Amino acid sequence: MNAIDVAVIGGDGIGPEVTEQALRVARTVLSKRGIELKETPYDLGARRWHATGQTLTDDDLAALSGHDAILLGAIGDPSVPSGILERDLLLRLRFAFDHYVNLRPSIRYPGVPSPLADPGEIDFIVVREGTEGLYCGNGGSVRRGTAHEIATEVSVNTAYGVRRLVRYAFEVAAARERKHLTLVHKHNVLVNAGDLWRRTVAEIGEEFPSVSTDYLHIDAATIFLVTDPARFDVIVTDNLFGDILTDEAGAISGGVGLAASANLNPEGAFPSMFEPVHGSAPDIAGTNTADPIAAIGSLVLMLNHLGIREAANDVQQAVSTHMAQRAELAAAGIPYEVTTSGVGDAICAAL
Amino acid sequence: MNAIDVAVIGGDGIGPEVTEQALRVARTVLSKRGIELKETPYDLGARRWHATGQTLTDDDLAALSGHDAILLGAIGDPSVPSGILERDLLLRLRFAFDHYVNLRPSIRYPGVPSPLADPGEIDFIVVREGTEGLYCGNGGSVRRGTAHEIATEVSVNTAYGVRRLVRYAFEVAAARERKHLTLVHKHNVLVNAGDLWRRTVAEIGEEFPSVSTDYLHIDAATIFLVTDPARFDVIVTDNLFGDILTDEAGAISGGVGLAASANLNPEGAFPSMFEPVHGSAPDIAGTNTADPIAAIGSLVLMLNHLGIREAANDVQQAVSTHMAQRAELAAAGIPYEVTTSGVGDAICAAL
Ligand SMILES: CC(C)[C@H](C(=O)O)[C@@H](O)C(=O)O
Ligand SMILES: CC(C)[C@H](C(=O)O)[C@@H](O)C(=O)O
Repeated sequence: MNAIDVAVIGGDGIGPEVTEQALRVARTVLSKRGIELKETPYDLGARRWHATGQTLTDDDLAALSGHDAILLGAIGDPSVPSGILERDLLLRLRFAFDHYVNLRPSIRYPGVPSPLADPGEIDFIVVREGTEGLYCGNGGSVRRGTAHEIATEVSVNTAYGVRRLVRYAFEVAAARERKHLTLVHKHNVLVNAGDLWRRTVAEIGEEFPSVSTDYLHIDAATIFLVTDPARFDVIVTDNLFGDILTDEAGAISGGVGLAASANLNPEGAFPSMFEPVHGSAPDIAGTNTADPIAAIGSLVLMLNHLGIREAANDVQQAVSTHMAQRAELAAAGIPYEVTTSGVGDAICAAL
Repeated sequence: MNAIDVAVIGGDGIGPEVTEQALRVARTVLSKRGIELKETPYDLGARRWHATGQTLTDDDLAALSGHDAILLGAIGDPSVPSGILERDLLLRLRFAFDHYVNLRPSIRYPGVPSPLADPGEIDFIVVREGTEGLYCGNGGSVRRGTAHEIATEVSVNTAYGVRRLVRYAFEVAAARERKHLTLVHKHNVLVNAGDLWRRTVAEIGEEFPSVSTDYLHIDAATIFLVTDPARFDVIVTDNLFGDILTDEAGAISGGVGLAASANLNPEGAFPSMFEPVHGSAPDIAGTNTADPIAAIGSLVLMLNHLGIREAANDVQQAVSTHMAQRAELAAAGIPYEVTTSGVGDAICAAL
């Protein structure tokens, strides 16, 4: 590979800052390996919406679809009515590019402070469905604003959508050491969707005899994330439960500032998209205090997805080295003061 | 008041054991105050279903509706197909008796071990909607078992249902010291339901100028429960988000074995129902190791609801005394060994 062609959506709030550090790291690691990095910035998010009323046009989508991958910072701003940027931009990207696998690893770097007294070893990955469930926008209101208003939200689950996601999750589990897959749902209440998910895991599981499986209700899963996160290896779950679990997982492993994610279209029909789990954090935007590790971790997932595994490993190694330095400082009673650019400097130096 | 008339549903797994301890405590505290306790046991749950195929008949409902309150242990058994007991018994009770307020206090007793390194002061209450949302059973499947299966689940939210619940939550908040109400939802994705919930909180909030409000997405709320639970005073939320949050809340405050709940019909048109947040825990049923504190805490909520406040205070005091003893032992390095009957003994003795 001589070049990779990446669409860059910095987005809102801290998005552009953390993305810039991920790009610096990408430039550093790729130029060492003689790979050209083509970066095409896309102006999407609150600024553009205020200026033009546009979130994501068909032309934007057509242009974006021509790249190898999309690196995204964060989307969302309090100045824009709720849901517009999330649904018409972020979710539209996930749906239009059929990002049915939302991959969210949770790893606690040794020594990183956790709110848990005894976190144990946290090293699991959530395989979240990305194109169905309650995220379809399949609801509505009648008699809005009256005493007789009814608002509905519909969770749509298809055999097609669940099967391909569950199969992917089994593949992920089979390639890991512990080879354990946990389905998280709420099948005692959501009986129709729960039944489909359970049957699918049972069926596809027959093709993966090396993978052991179990099941947890979403409420029980939120308990175990706090009391025994080490029990998890791979979690497969729907769009909303995955959203909830991965934020809690981010919190226990050291903060969502560290949590990376990939929105994958595994077949490559569309570019996959890589973004931190965290949001746009408008309150700290521009202060150079956001931790870019989640963005840099998302870069690692991107490099891996593009098959540039050695570069991915190099960045991951540099991140681990840097996190070990933080842990050493913390152990010495000197909490590491994150600056966005400082972390970027440290990772680039470690490369 | 000379007598109270309570329907007792021990239910499945550890349900009967923990309920028995709550009843012992009730007998002790009420007889001291010259109040008669009428107990009518109802055989509902897995045993009855296996024996008769019945979960909850119209006759059961009619009989239950004649009591002042219902004390419930736990419902659910792995020998019964998922959803049958939960939906046709537990949820049917909540829906038939219009238990629209599901009240779930989270209090961490001083010194009780928490999985959090620094839990701070945990003293909040979740006001969960109990008769709407994704719990309506309003979904279905088409082409079940084929490659074209579609399974849906519909969250139904009505102005009527949301308003009465939100009003109740404001009343709870106004009566507390901090007077702070947090709405938890996911309005950036569930725009129709989220919009209804937000507008309702804004509208009803005008009647409660002393109460401050804020908003969190469900994913952010699961983070703050781990990183800063002390920030919460009253949380108001829908049925599913409430289910998830209260289990996580139970975990951080010392375990769901301590978490009590009330299913209220505040107007008294139907008997309210009091039950631990925990499930039936079939794995430890009959071993006398389940902690009955959640069941006894549910009794406190019941006594309060029935207006027998002094008895409620006495039991709460006895529970606090007992929990302080546990904390003392723990501080001395001797972890308190819970036995179901032993905890009942201790509380009765403290009365
Ligand atoms: C911003 C929001 C729509 C999004 C989601 O709910 O998926 C975010 O929380 C995430 O997890 O990526
Ligand atoms: C058993 C189940 C149906 C129930 C619920 O989801 O409400 C339980 O988890 C609870 O929280 O009381």
